[in-house]
Amino acid sequence: MSDWNPALYGRYESERTRPAAELLARVPLPTPGVVVDLGCGPGNSTELLVRRYPRATVQGIDTSPAMIESARRRLPGLGFEVADIAAWRPARPVDLAYANASLQWLGDHERLLPRLLERVAPGGVLAVQMPDNLDQPSHALMREVAALPPFAAALADAAAQRERLPSAERYYDWLSPQAEVDVWRTTYEHPMVDAAAIVEWLRATGLRPFLDPLAPPERDAFVAEYQRRIDAAYPVRADGRRLLAFPRLFVVARRRGLAGA
Amino acid sequence: MSDWNPALYGRYESERTRPAAELLARVPLPTPGVVVDLGCGPGNSTELLVRRYPRATVQGIDTSPAMIESARRRLPGLGFEVADIAAWRPARPVDLAYANASLQWLGDHERLLPRLLERVAPGGVLAVQMPDNLDQPSHALMREVAALPPFAAALADAAAQRERLPSAERYYDWLSPQAEVDVWRTTYEHPMVDAAAIVEWLRATGLRPFLDPLAPPERDAFVAEYQRRIDAAYPVRADGRRLLAFPRLFVVARRRGLAGA
Repeated sequence: MSDWNPALYGRYESERTRPAAELLARVPLPTPGVVVDLGCGPGNSTELLVRRYPRATVQGIDTSPAMIESARRRLPGLGFEVADIAAWRPARPVDLAYANASLQWLGDHERLLPRLLERVAPGGVLAVQMPDNLDQPSHALMREVAALPPFAAALADAAAQRERLPSAERYYDWLSPQAEVDVWRTTYEHPMVDAAAIVEWLRATGLRPFLDPLAPPERDAFVAEYQRRIDAAYPVRADGRRLLAFPRLFVVARRRGLAGA
Repeated sequence: MSDWNPALYGRYESERTRPAAELLARVPLPTPGVVVDLGCGPGNSTELLVRRYPRATVQGIDTSPAMIESARRRLPGLGFEVADIAAWRPARPVDLAYANASLQWLGDHERLLPRLLERVAPGGVLAVQMPDNLDQPSHALMREVAALPPFAAALADAAAQRERLPSAERYYDWLSPQAEVDVWRTTYEHPMVDAAAIVEWLRATGLRPFLDPLAPPERDAFVAEYQRRIDAAYPVRADGRRLLAFPRLFVVARRRGLAGA
C-alpha cells in the first residue's frame, strides 16, 4: 500500500481517540517505567500515554514513515521509530505494551498476542484495542463494490488484507493462562453529517486497500458507487444525521508474577 | 415482587459499578447544581455521583424501601426517597438525571425518555445505562426453565416483567431533536469462578421475577435445573473460569439550550 495520510486520519481525531482513552483508563498500572505505543500512528494515542504517565519512558513504533514523522513533530524528544510490530523485540521486558487500532492489520493473533505478552515484565500489561467492523455495512459494501466488473481484477486481493477478528472468548483463552484478562466489546454510534462524511472517515483507514490499487479515474468511480450505497445503507435519523455503528474489541492482560516498576 | 436484597445485590458490586462509572465518565458537566440518581439501589452509583460532584445537591429515588434504607445508611445526610421513576416530577428542572441499571424495568421508553429529558434544564444531561441481555443464554435459559411443566403455571407472566430494549438508533431518534446524543453498547465479559457464581449474580436481579412466585421447594428445583443448563451453556475457559457476556446500552443526552449550573 501507499503510505498513510496523517492529515486525513486526523480529521476524526476526537472520535478515534475516545477508544484509545477508554483502553488506557482500564490499565491497572499507577507508575510504569517503560511504555511502548505499538502502531502509534501520528502520536494521538502516544500523547495520552505521556499525559497519564509523565514520568515514564514512552516510546512509539509504526510501519509508516509519514506517521512516525508526524508523531515526532507532535511529541519531540520521545523515542519514535519506523518498525514492524510483528518483529518487535525490546532489549528488556517493558511495563506497558499498548496497541491501539493497530493489531487488526496483523494476522495470526493466536501466536501474536501471547508473544507480545512475553515482551511484558511480570506484573506489566498488554493493552489492545481493535476495530471489529468487517461485518458492518461500511465494510461489506467495500467488498461488494470491489466485486463489480470495473474493479474486480485490480481488487481481487483487497479484502484479504484484514481478517475477521476471533471472538472475545478466544483472546481470553490465549492470554488467561499467563495473565488476568479483561475483555470487552463496545459498539460506538458516531453521528455523521452525511454519507460523504462516512466515506471520508473510512478513506483514512479501511478503504485504503481498496483505493490504493486503482488509477485515479477508477478510484473516483469506486468512491462514487461506494458512497451511493453508503447513502442507502445508513438512513437519515430524526436530527438529519446518520449513525455510523463502529464495534471495537478491547483486551487488557496483566501478566502474572511480581509487579513491575 | 418481594423487596430487593441489598446484600445479595452488593456481592458483585465492583462488576456492577463499572458501567455506572463509565456512564458517569461520559457526562460532559463540570459543576452541576442538582443531581438525581433515578433507581439508586443501595447507593453504590450515588456514591460515584457524590465523589465526582462534591459540591452538588445529590438526591436518590428507588421503589424499594430496603434499597433506600441501605442507601441512607451508606450516605447519611443525602436526600433519599422511596418513589417511582415513571411518576418523578422534580419541583424545578435538574442539571443531571442519572439512571443506572433501572429503566429496563420500565416500559414505553419512546415516551418515558423524552419525558425524563424534559425534567432536565437546558444544557443539562440525562444519562442512562441499561442491561440489554434478554437474548443472552443467561436469560433465554430462565424462560426455558419457566416453561417446564412444574413451573409453567406459576411463571406464566414472569418473562413479561422486562421487555427487550429497542435499538440504539431508536433512542437516538427519540432524543436527538432536543439533545446532543451519545449512544453506545458495551458487552462486558465477566470471568466467573463457576456456574454457581453466574446463578448467584443473577439471583440478585434478573432471576427475581422467576423465583419470587415460587414456593421454596419449587424455587430450589428451579435453581438446580437452571444452574445445570447454565453449566452447559457457559463452557470452561483456558484458566478454568467461565465468561459471562453482559451487554449494556448507554445513552447520554445533553439538552440543547443555555448551559445549566
